[in-house]
Amino acid sequence: MKILVLSGANMGKNTALAMRKVEEELKENYGEGNTITFIDLRDKKMEFADGRSYIDYPGDTGEVGQAVMDADIIFVGTPIFQASIPASLKNVFDLIPSKGLEYKTIGIVANAGSNRHYLVPELTLKPILNYLKANVVPRYVYISDLDFGLDEILNDDVNFRLKDLVEETLVLGKTYQQLWEDEQKRLLGL
Amino acid sequence: MKILVLSGANMGKNTALAMRKVEEELKENYGEGNTITFIDLRDKKMEFADGRSYIDYPGDTGEVGQAVMDADIIFVGTPIFQASIPASLKNVFDLIPSKGLEYKTIGIVANAGSNRHYLVPELTLKPILNYLKANVVPRYVYISDLDFGLDEILNDDVNFRLKDLVEETLVLGKTYQQLWEDEQKRLLGL
Amino acid sequence: MKILVLSGANMGKNTALAMRKVEEELKENYGEGNTITFIDLRDKKMEFADGRSYIDYPGDTGEVGQAVMDADIIFVGTPIFQASIPASLKNVFDLIPSKGLEYKTIGIVANAGSNRHYLVPELTLKPILNYLKANVVPRYVYISDLDFGLDEILNDDVNFRLKDLVEETLVLGKTYQQLWEDEQKRLLGL
Amino acid sequence: MKILVLSGANMGKNTALAMRKVEEELKENYGEGNTITFIDLRDKKMEFADGRSYIDYPGDTGEVGQAVMDADIIFVGTPIFQASIPASLKNVFDLIPSKGLEYKTIGIVANAGSNRHYLVPELTLKPILNYLKANVVPRYVYISDLDFGLDEILNDDVNFRLKDLVEETLVLGKTYQQLWEDEQKRLLGL
Repeated sequence: MKILVLSGANMGKNTALAMRKVEEELKENYGEGNTITFIDLRDKKMEFADGRSYIDYPGDTGEVGQAVMDADIIFVGTPIFQASIPASLKNVFDLIPSKGLEYKTIGIVANAGSNRHYLVPELTLKPILNYLKANVVPRYVYISDLDFGLDEILNDDVNFRLKDLVEETLVLGKTYQQLWEDEQKRLLGL
Repeated sequence: MKILVLSGANMGKNTALAMRKVEEELKENYGEGNTITFIDLRDKKMEFADGRSYIDYPGDTGEVGQAVMDADIIFVGTPIFQASIPASLKNVFDLIPSKGLEYKTIGIVANAGSNRHYLVPELTLKPILNYLKANVVPRYVYISDLDFGLDEILNDDVNFRLKDLVEETLVLGKTYQQLWEDEQKRLLGL
Repeated sequence: MKILVLSGANMGKNTALAMRKVEEELKENYGEGNTITFIDLRDKKMEFADGRSYIDYPGDTGEVGQAVMDADIIFVGTPIFQASIPASLKNVFDLIPSKGLEYKTIGIVANAGSNRHYLVPELTLKPILNYLKANVVPRYVYISDLDFGLDEILNDDVNFRLKDLVEETLVLGKTYQQLWEDEQKRLLGL
Repeated sequence: MKILVLSGANMGKNTALAMRKVEEELKENYGEGNTITFIDLRDKKMEFADGRSYIDYPGDTGEVGQAVMDADIIFVGTPIFQASIPASLKNVFDLIPSKGLEYKTIGIVANAGSNRHYLVPELTLKPILNYLKANVVPRYVYISDLDFGLDEILNDDVNFRLKDLVEETLVLGKTYQQLWEDEQKRLLGL
């Protein structure tokens, strides 16, 4: 399967640190038979979605849209800004068609300065993903900014929860793929 | 597996009609090896949750709490009242402990008078289920009250979507059960 | 104006403690020209809303419905159970008609065990109140259960915020009343 | 007072059409003593917020941030993309500090292709505005894309509701301003 690890922040380092950990875990335990792509929005020069299809943007914008559309499994990393996901991440979803995440399984990682925003992924990110027809893994990993050091995650429990998220997302992704293939065959009368 | 079909309305007939259709589909195609229980809150004399454990309520209240706790898979049917789930259904969730739906897979069916409330299950029911640690099937079936006749669902597409929900929930439920068993074994060093 | 202080919990003491403080502030500084009613749902024997109009329930249920409908200003106190408002409070809203809170101004007080649920009133209570056409004061008072002693609020800052909420709600309530009266006159061609 | 009319879409024409109607109503009935500014994000070349303060962006980005910070009253117009507000609008909020909308009163206008998204402003826009400490007018105007013609709003009822929103927002804005001034005086012991 094609796995995309998407660090949705265009500032700060914590979101990318968490998503690098996800990538590491994927490479270590799920590298075989899967391709793993990492996108850090800090490295991309993105245009605002303006109604064109994702394939019509030159450069990074089109490439990011394409990578999202190509993936079977996506790990979405988001910081929380102003009690919601940042514009940089919403923009990625604005680029793709309205059923653009159908047949994709998604695991969520969020980081924030305060526990008060624990429900933000539940209430501002999941409804978008569900609208786009994604299969979202119910439990997400929520990381306090206090759990990060300069260039690593200091809290072992967080690493453990990221590991669990990766496993759960991969298992669910495979299950759904099987489900959809069976459905296809039935529809085709095979 | 133990499957509970819970019609969460204590008034009206449409929620129960939809959930009877779910039960019918379960009996027809998934009866073998599973036990199927149907609870219609219109038939139950429920007390308001008052802080006691669900096992401490006599009569229907304790029985409904127990049935929820016993189930591996739950189909939750809810009408939409005042842009939210009704008190009758919230009360069932108030009866159980805070991780009371862990290791359970849940499929949602909602009925409402208006399409304006399409996002209500997404935004008022799923966060409760997720808080209780349930594994919620992302896509729910939303039925307009216009799709119901006197004692049946008139819109074939609704019946088709209910059928799909049943299949998806059962497949996910089995997948999760396997996942948890593997996890258990690993934790036990087996 | 008729002011209702509604303690929406049917268990625990903290919600009622906070709402008694609201009542105290009202009596001290806004008693003149206003009537102040206090309802504690722990003292009421409520039936579940079953589709009848609030006036058709005998006893406490009908009385609580009537008190809500009569009020110009309502202070709603809610604990947070299972990441949402409790069934006891939702039931009060299920009793009244779909525009039942029109021309009423509402101040919200919430108490919970964890800061993780800070957004619950924003996301599960306000949409219900807005659906019922209430004018909801945007800022609510959120109190951690750690701020309560046995029979009082220990944190002075909480008392200060409750005082502010009372003032803001009263000022807004009066403003809206003036606005509606002017509108009425204009519609009547006065 | 300084009034900002912000059309938050960077594509499509309907959001701007609705906000031009708001501007027209303001000029006709509330021009005296107020300054009215109109910003259409389709005309602005915005950068993504990257953690800098809004005053540190050259060109349009800094100007839009400044206009938001300067306003006493803001009318926010938003289309609904992927069951949420668009990145272009979220980006404006990402530019300003975390209490950036304190002492500002905000009226909301939303347009969408489907009634299914009626609750999106309630659930994805208001929490952001409330987090930023704005005073949000509870009722918003929700417009179906079917209500628009090529260059005007065809549905008279929509125009009427926009007119009401303008009045309500202005009255509330003035009330709040008085409330805050009184508070200031009290704090200063005047």
